[in-house]
Amino acid sequence: MDAFGDRLATAVLRCKTPTLVGLDPRFDSLPASLKAGRDADNPADVAAAFEAFCKGVIDVVAPLVAVVKPQAAFFEQVGVPGMAALANTIAYARQEGLLVILDGKRNDIGSTAAGYADAYLGEESAWKADALTVSPYLGDDSLTPFVDVANDRGAGIFVLVKTSNPGGGLFQDVSDGDGPLYRHVANHVELLNARNSSASRYGPVGAVVGATYPEQLVELRAVMPHAWFLVPGYGAQGGAAADVAGAFDEDGLGAVVNNSRGIIFAHAKDDRFGDDRWQDAVEAATHAMIASLRDNTPASAQ
Amino acid sequence: MDAFGDRLATAVLRCKTPTLVGLDPRFDSLPASLKAGRDADNPADVAAAFEAFCKGVIDVVAPLVAVVKPQAAFFEQVGVPGMAALANTIAYARQEGLLVILDGKRNDIGSTAAGYADAYLGEESAWKADALTVSPYLGDDSLTPFVDVANDRGAGIFVLVKTSNPGGGLFQDVSDGDGPLYRHVANHVELLNARNSSASRYGPVGAVVGATYPEQLVELRAVMPHAWFLVPGYGAQGGAAADVAGAFDEDGLGAVVNNSRGIIFAHAKDDRFGDDRWQDAVEAATHAMIASLRDNTPASAQ
Repeated sequence: MDAFGDRLATAVLRCKTPTLVGLDPRFDSLPASLKAGRDADNPADVAAAFEAFCKGVIDVVAPLVAVVKPQAAFFEQVGVPGMAALANTIAYARQEGLLVILDGKRNDIGSTAAGYADAYLGEESAWKADALTVSPYLGDDSLTPFVDVANDRGAGIFVLVKTSNPGGGLFQDVSDGDGPLYRHVANHVELLNARNSSASRYGPVGAVVGATYPEQLVELRAVMPHAWFLVPGYGAQGGAAADVAGAFDEDGLGAVVNNSRGIIFAHAKDDRFGDDRWQDAVEAATHAMIASLRDNTPASAQ
Repeated sequence: MDAFGDRLATAVLRCKTPTLVGLDPRFDSLPASLKAGRDADNPADVAAAFEAFCKGVIDVVAPLVAVVKPQAAFFEQVGVPGMAALANTIAYARQEGLLVILDGKRNDIGSTAAGYADAYLGEESAWKADALTVSPYLGDDSLTPFVDVANDRGAGIFVLVKTSNPGGGLFQDVSDGDGPLYRHVANHVELLNARNSSASRYGPVGAVVGATYPEQLVELRAVMPHAWFLVPGYGAQGGAAADVAGAFDEDGLGAVVNNSRGIIFAHAKDDRFGDDRWQDAVEAATHAMIASLRDNTPASAQ
């Protein structure tokens, strides 16, 4: 299989948009038709609703965008049936031609990190995601097992660098003479990619950098020229299209911008549709984000 | 339910040992009797072997120790059947009177962190662990949802502070004028506990500090007087009983010391037993660790 950096570049160029749709199902927020006859306290019911909802979103967005990002937490919350819904959602998205970044923020040390890498990205993977978000706190030897598996399988990881939440700076901004912690992490991401860059110039190790920090997006784009950016924080968290402009390279590539609630729960915010036409609301919200990124970022150059 | 700090103190005092048994199943390392007739490439077979093995370990150690720590990665590696084996293992351990710290190193931001907290620790939790390991990289607002749920339910978390692996220092040792990153995290752990200490003096927010860093154990014990320590790195990773002495308070409380491979796979290292008597090997290894900690640490004062 091709290297992940190239696979993602090809997919984004084909769709002509860096829009990434986050699959964050919450039972209370689902359209009424998917909650009908299902008990919020019954894990099998909730898992079935999540799977139907995510597949319904995928049906709408698969012709429009390159990537989806299921959030593991919400499936784990539903226990074993939730995990089955997650596996089925990942498989369905890939069958429909989408790349899947599983947002699990996993990590551990040494052989346990290798366990997570095999679990989510390996050749015999039970979950078969194309990429996984990974936390860097455990350091160098916690990241290399993921990079090894990613290289073997044409998969990728996205390392948390500068997250979108207000409290993220408490530790990420701790600075020594070489700059804040997030820049140390960014330097290490670039180092890991330097050995593994591919035809599109991007390596298997991406970086999570929040839309809520536009200046750091520019700073970090320069620090990590070989890293795909996964940019959360657009929409519900306050980031606008213009805020993410700095995440892209001069060719309009190098970043995917996530929107979860703003797309998947658009039916609750857009009076034109409502619950019955929730998939039309998803489609309209996806088109609106595509247009906004095209009009306000270098992604238009694609 | 009582606060987690008190529940753990009561359990450790009852067993008179801080020994914590890590449940890290790997198919290749299981005793032959548990592999027989099972296909290493069949997830249902592997999951069944993991569950039988973990229950067999629990049967041996439940009368001897207070706490077990299943490692989520190895169960996730087996997909949905593995997750069912994890849920059954947690339930069985609690039924046998053990406290369960799930080693998942989870975290995310805001409402997603609340999802993980509900998933693993909440009143309606699908997995029902007593505590969960948590990564701090995402900062303050990623930790408070866990603390809130923990307080509500008498549960706990263990925040990664100074991990046992050789590469952990790459980011954890980045230092500003107030000290290294791990001390910033430690200060925050203490702050979270200051508002929530309990009768035994320990709050719901523990700290992971590796046995491979004996000096930092002493330093961090002073920084976090209200935090239970979870000490990995004993045994296979090179930490000895004397190395963990600094993790305890003057009453011999305040720390649990993990041993995974050294106990659960003892049959492979101890010629007296072998595969057929693997549970006897687990028992002997547990007794040996209990004696070593009693003879070489303040835990003898319990």
